[in-house]
Amino acid sequence: MKCRICRQGAVIEVRRHNAAFCRSHFVEHIHRQVERTIHDHGMFSPTDRLLLGVSGGKDSLALWAILTTLGYAVDGVYLHLGIGDYSSESLELTQRFAEGRGLTLRVVDLPEEQGFGVPEAARAGRRSPCSACGLSKRYLLNKAADDLGYDVLVMGHNLDDEAATLFANVLGWQTEYLARQRPVLPATEGGLARKVKPLIRVAERETAAYAILQGIDYEVEECPMAGGNTINRYKKWLDTLEEESPGLKTRFLTGFFERGQASFATMAPPELRSCEVCGQPTTGEVCAFCHLRRVTLEIVAR
Amino acid sequence: MKCRICRQGAVIEVRRHNAAFCRSHFVEHIHRQVERTIHDHGMFSPTDRLLLGVSGGKDSLALWAILTTLGYAVDGVYLHLGIGDYSSESLELTQRFAEGRGLTLRVVDLPEEQGFGVPEAARAGRRSPCSACGLSKRYLLNKAADDLGYDVLVMGHNLDDEAATLFANVLGWQTEYLARQRPVLPATEGGLARKVKPLIRVAERETAAYAILQGIDYEVEECPMAGGNTINRYKKWLDTLEEESPGLKTRFLTGFFERGQASFATMAPPELRSCEVCGQPTTGEVCAFCHLRRVTLEIVAR
Repeated sequence: MKCRICRQGAVIEVRRHNAAFCRSHFVEHIHRQVERTIHDHGMFSPTDRLLLGVSGGKDSLALWAILTTLGYAVDGVYLHLGIGDYSSESLELTQRFAEGRGLTLRVVDLPEEQGFGVPEAARAGRRSPCSACGLSKRYLLNKAADDLGYDVLVMGHNLDDEAATLFANVLGWQTEYLARQRPVLPATEGGLARKVKPLIRVAERETAAYAILQGIDYEVEECPMAGGNTINRYKKWLDTLEEESPGLKTRFLTGFFERGQASFATMAPPELRSCEVCGQPTTGEVCAFCHLRRVTLEIVAR
Repeated sequence: MKCRICRQGAVIEVRRHNAAFCRSHFVEHIHRQVERTIHDHGMFSPTDRLLLGVSGGKDSLALWAILTTLGYAVDGVYLHLGIGDYSSESLELTQRFAEGRGLTLRVVDLPEEQGFGVPEAARAGRRSPCSACGLSKRYLLNKAADDLGYDVLVMGHNLDDEAATLFANVLGWQTEYLARQRPVLPATEGGLARKVKPLIRVAERETAAYAILQGIDYEVEECPMAGGNTINRYKKWLDTLEEESPGLKTRFLTGFFERGQASFATMAPPELRSCEVCGQPTTGEVCAFCHLRRVTLEIVAR
């Protein structure tokens, strides 16, 4: 297996590109893929103030490294979700990464600031842990961007994440979700930051390979609460299809953005107003997070 | 395994309905599924003149039997596509079925009427056999309904066919196809008959079981030209998913008809005019079939 560029020994094969790469040309390839994604979707410019959600996992740390190398100034925000040792360890890895590179890391501590963590929210809210966690993360990330005056919220979702979400949304024909699944969600007047996903051309195993080849020390454990995570099932299904038809995930996702998405985007977006409790944008009177907080704190107090 | 209705020994399990049935209650179950489909989608009424496309396979013969039992008067049309012994045998089985039940069968003979069969069209047109065949069948069926004055063209596509087609259309985001994939395609002014698919709630193995239990002698061989048929790949993929999540195909297809389809159906349908050669409806000057015929006859004549 030879590198497509220099014909030296390759360290990784990328079947859907029908190519293999040596270490340095793989790194270059990943940089190019991300730069192209940012450019093609007009995600942001070097003057935008960027806030990246970092979890300590391979995707967000790799993306932070990539964007920095590409010349973008990006601050990170870590959400401490109160998931025991897992949260502490991820935070430590993230802090070490940021310090080693002189990057600014913001930390939002859910238990400290709100009095509860994801485990309590999951128990109280009759939601799955992943659902309570997703809701909390969306809220806290957006609030952090808003409070701290960032223009763009950058997310580390990779090709596999996005394709699996699309697959789940399509199998169940969740049209409201399909209407909002885009590489760039524009900012809204009500205070939702622009949200962008520069990693959607890069597969999960490629962000892992990138992190390893670049010596990035990341959290390798799965979240201990993600056992019943349904998105993993869709990922596994898509892996089976990709194995038989390399490039299927990319064609599926790219085709959706290029042709399918427009059919759903014509749906009127929900009207936003300010949450009566916290002032953040919501479609109802009280936002889903404030509702979750109220229910959780009631249970915790008992 | 006991029948859900009478608790006698069951002959078939239908996992997605979490049920098993004895012979007679299975037959009843299938009749009810088809009747519900016809009713829910307003496919036709007993006064409509119905023409069913019959191939001699399990689906179309089972559907003919079901519709007849439900009290609908349905004539059949068999397309002789010139695929050697396979075509002759399928025709014989179809004729025997119709004669045994006193049903009217029309036969359209492609080689006799047009001077070529599907094998020649596939060679000449640089299309796959399945593509040349599908194009010819759509054309000939519609023309037969038009020439013979039928109101509705009834098709034997089952749940697996429809779900696999949808899956293929979604993976490739073929939005024009998605806009037209419906249980009922209304008639158009230009001469396209209403087209309906009453078997879309019934799985392939269920139409096979129905045919066997009802003593219907059908063509069990696959078409000898269908080796590279890509739709079979999508069927196999969906089978894998269905195995892990019974009911997935039904939810996928039903969800599309109930929620997804509307997003695509807003696309303006293509404008139809009369083909300059044959007068049948087409979007261009000469319809795809007349084009295929011209190219094929040129090659055949050499």
